[in-house]
Parts: sequence; C-alpha cells; structure tokens
Amino acid sequence: MAQSLKKQRSNTIGVIVPEIRHHFFATVISGIENVAYDAGFIIIVCQSDETLQREITNTRALAANRVAGLIMAISLETTTFEHMKAVMKQGIPLVQFDRVVPELNTGKVIIDDFRAAYKITSHLIDCGYKRIGFLAGREGIALNQLRFNGYMQALKNYGIPYYPELHTGTGGCREEDGRIGADMYLAMGNPPDAILAINDPVAVGAFCRFREAGLRIPDDIALAGFSGSPESALIDPPLTTINQPAFEMGRTAAALILKQLNSIDENFIPETVTLKTELLMRGSSLRREQD
Amino acid sequence: MAQSLKKQRSNTIGVIVPEIRHHFFATVISGIENVAYDAGFIIIVCQSDETLQREITNTRALAANRVAGLIMAISLETTTFEHMKAVMKQGIPLVQFDRVVPELNTGKVIIDDFRAAYKITSHLIDCGYKRIGFLAGREGIALNQLRFNGYMQALKNYGIPYYPELHTGTGGCREEDGRIGADMYLAMGNPPDAILAINDPVAVGAFCRFREAGLRIPDDIALAGFSGSPESALIDPPLTTINQPAFEMGRTAAALILKQLNSIDENFIPETVTLKTELLMRGSSLRREQD
Repeated sequence: MAQSLKKQRSNTIGVIVPEIRHHFFATVISGIENVAYDAGFIIIVCQSDETLQREITNTRALAANRVAGLIMAISLETTTFEHMKAVMKQGIPLVQFDRVVPELNTGKVIIDDFRAAYKITSHLIDCGYKRIGFLAGREGIALNQLRFNGYMQALKNYGIPYYPELHTGTGGCREEDGRIGADMYLAMGNPPDAILAINDPVAVGAFCRFREAGLRIPDDIALAGFSGSPESALIDPPLTTINQPAFEMGRTAAALILKQLNSIDENFIPETVTLKTELLMRGSSLRREQD
Repeated sequence: MAQSLKKQRSNTIGVIVPEIRHHFFATVISGIENVAYDAGFIIIVCQSDETLQREITNTRALAANRVAGLIMAISLETTTFEHMKAVMKQGIPLVQFDRVVPELNTGKVIIDDFRAAYKITSHLIDCGYKRIGFLAGREGIALNQLRFNGYMQALKNYGIPYYPELHTGTGGCREEDGRIGADMYLAMGNPPDAILAINDPVAVGAFCRFREAGLRIPDDIALAGFSGSPESALIDPPLTTINQPAFEMGRTAAALILKQLNSIDENFIPETVTLKTELLMRGSSLRREQD
C-alpha cells in the first residue's frame, strides 16, 4: 500500500506553518524550498493561523493532493494529533520542526530548548539580576514547557528565588502579546529586574512598551528573548537572545523528508536532529557599569 | 482549449516571489493564502532567488502541475518574459504584483510608485534638505524607474538640484546593499544631507552603517525608505517611509485570480488595481529643532 503510493507520488512537498509572515517560519520555509528545489521538488505552503481546525483542513488537502512528504510545525491550539497520524498511516513521510509533538514517531528538527533557556537565564543571573520574570508562551506546547523548565533549573542551580507572580503573559507569541505582558509587569508594586520572554517578538513588544513608559533598558529592567530575529538586532540597546538556526532548520527538515523518500528500508526509523543554538549577549541585559 | 483546461484545473494557486524571507513578500503570500483558503484553494509557493533561470524553472513546474492560476513578482534579473507569455497561452490566469511587467496583459496589483516617491521626496524638501541622494534599486525594474521618476519630479518642481553623484547604490534590495551604499556616501567629500532609499531594508542597512560610523540621524544625515517594514518602526529614531499595504496586495491578487477563474466571458479583460499608500513621517527625517 505505502509502496504503491510511493510510486505515484508527486514532486511536491507540503509545508504547514502557524504563520507565513512570522520571520522565523518564513526563514524555515526558505530553507526547505532551498533543498527541495535542488532535489527537483516544489513546495506547497499553507498556514494554520494558529488554529487546529485550519491545520486539520490543510493537512487533509495536502494529503488529498498526494504530496510526497509533509513538513509541519503545529499551531498553538493543537492538542489532538489524529490528523497527523492519518498522514503517517497513508505512508506520507512526516517531519516536524520547532513546535513538535514528541510522542509521534516522525522525523524531527529541533533545538535544545531546555539547554538554551538554561543558558540565557544563567546569563541574566551572572549579570546580577535577582527577580527574573518569565513572559510565557502557551502551555501544552512542548518547547514552551522545555524553555520554562530550563529557566526554572537555572534559578534553582544558582539559588535564585522563583516568584510565581512574575511568571505571566497572554500565552500568545506576537509583539502585541509582549506589549500586554509589559503592562502586567508595569502594574506590579514590586516588578522584576529582568525578564526572559518566550520569543523575540514578545520580547520586542515588551521592550517597546517599557520604552514608551519611560523605563531605561537594561538599567530599570533587563530583557532577553529567544530566536534571533532581525528585529532583535535593530532595537537600541539590541536584544540579548538565543540565535535559532531557522534556515538550517528548514534545510534539515527537507533533507529528512528526502532521506525517508529515498529509503528502501521497510523499517525506516525517523531521526531527530538537534541543531545548535548560540547565546547572543547584547545591550538589553548587559549593564554598562559592569563592562 | 482554455476551456478544457479550466475543467480539469486543480485547487492550487501558484505563487512565485523573489524571496520568501523578505517581510514584504512573506506578508503578500499571507494575504494570498488568506483569500485562497476561503475559496477552497491551497497555494504552492516558489522563490526565484532573484534569478531569471530559477523563475523560468518554477514557472514551468507550476504550469506542469496544472495550477489553476499563477501570481508572481518578477526577479531583479527578469528582462525577458517568454516564460510568462507561455503561461498565458496555456490559459492559466496570471496576476502580477509589485514588480510588474507593464506591457503584459495580465491582472496587476500595484501602488502608485511615482506618486509615493514624489510625496516622500517632497517631505524631505519640506524639512529643509537640499542635497538629497537616491540610493537606487536595479535599473530595468519598472517600479524602480517610477520611484526614481517621482524623486526627480519632486526635485524639479521644488527647484532643488539633482546631483548625479548622489544617485548611487549597488542596485540590490537587501540590508547589505544599504550598508555598501552608506559606505559610498561616507567616502564622498561632499555627502548628501538626506537620502531616499529604494526600500526599507536598504534604508535600514544604511541607517545601521551610518550609526556605526558615528553619524547622528537625522542631524548629520536624514533617511527615508519605502515599504513600511516592521524594522522601520524599531530603529531609533524610526524610519520615515511609505507604508505599502502588503497583506491587502496579496488578498487583491488572489481575488483577481478568482475573478478570472470564475469569469465566463471569453474576452475577459484583466484589471490593474492600484492600492493606496501612506507617508509615515518619522524621526529619521524630522529634525528636532523644527518641531
């Protein structure tokens, strides 16, 4: 069955991302397209708009279009995975990246979110910050949990207290969510002296809101993000962040699909590739008097 | 012939852009996908990487995949259009956006580049700048010529001299090109007091380079861009620019394809839709002492 489907496979690879406009996902798509093109494939890109319903519709449409393989990062709403299992049952290679469902036996391209969050939190502690807030993403998304765990582990190892009231946010992952999170901190009697945000757009949104409110960064409040977006380098002072290799993530995801397509092994075992990240220590956390 | 193809058409719309990662194009794609999804279509996205060869390969692959329609913005290298004419001959509706080939009789979604460039140049003149440089894009691209013409017309109408030596740049359209352009200006004995760049990435690249070189913006040199990228709002001072409605451009392009697909008129005449832009006057051109 899988074999017969393989024979009539198309030259297209399907890609489902939460938002094409999000720089991280746009860059991953570019990486996928880069490898796919060289191998003679074209890609079909769909976005879930962060909704499960649309992700399911997209998944079915791509399977019906007989894509040769499917690469995806789940939406923030995705807590059931029947649509992904259905694709796998049809013999279509599935590769997940970034936001992955760990329990599904598919190819995966990830970073070590726990370790990266541990590293950037340790950096904030090294800078002397003592009340470190966590501007959180949606619960139930594996990478968000891993980032939170890394943050907690660093606090614990360095003997820095965890203040539950400083662990807040909308759960969203856009600039607007960072602005709202900043307002939550601004309303606190005893605000944090540093904040780790779930990603760069959230950190940049908080940054802009704090600046509007007249706070000096990092003197009044330090900020750190996650992803290494172009925006992170443009704000002044620039944002301390974790550089995620988005283009490489896309290239690797495409390579995993091709590997699975070209495998003649009946018992092909999908791989998980963990890509390296880099801590970018910048002005939003480095206090001038310390230099 | 066209009719028989119409009957067997797929539910996919092809999209070719120079670079998926470029925020402007990523946003247009998002707009296309938004309308296409609601009409029951999925989209196939390819990028030309700014090369004619790859654009031709993509165009042929999409036509071979029997896309229902094709939406595209040409690469910087594209000076022959046989591949586009071939698509039209096959009865596949073609809609161009942003970088369009005026002489091809297709649907088009554009802005009034001449008028927008005239407006932003007039703004620089109103601010008191007298030596206004033009950090140019590739020649032969219609919209680049229109932007240059708008700039020239404003200089002429206001009696401000045009200095050919201040009309420079690599012809590229990325941040890196802006950095190189800034170096060209920095090497001049008599540099400009303001610069209009072909787009926001080029303006932002020049901005960063000037800042590194210790210039104060806008006091030492003013800058203006074109497109309204998120980066333009984040630099400090923020960039004066023309806000292009990228998402709406994508939605309109998809709507034009659907209109053509649903038309039963044998003599369907493709439309050109010109979307409104907005001049964003911001700190990179507004001198504080003038406020």
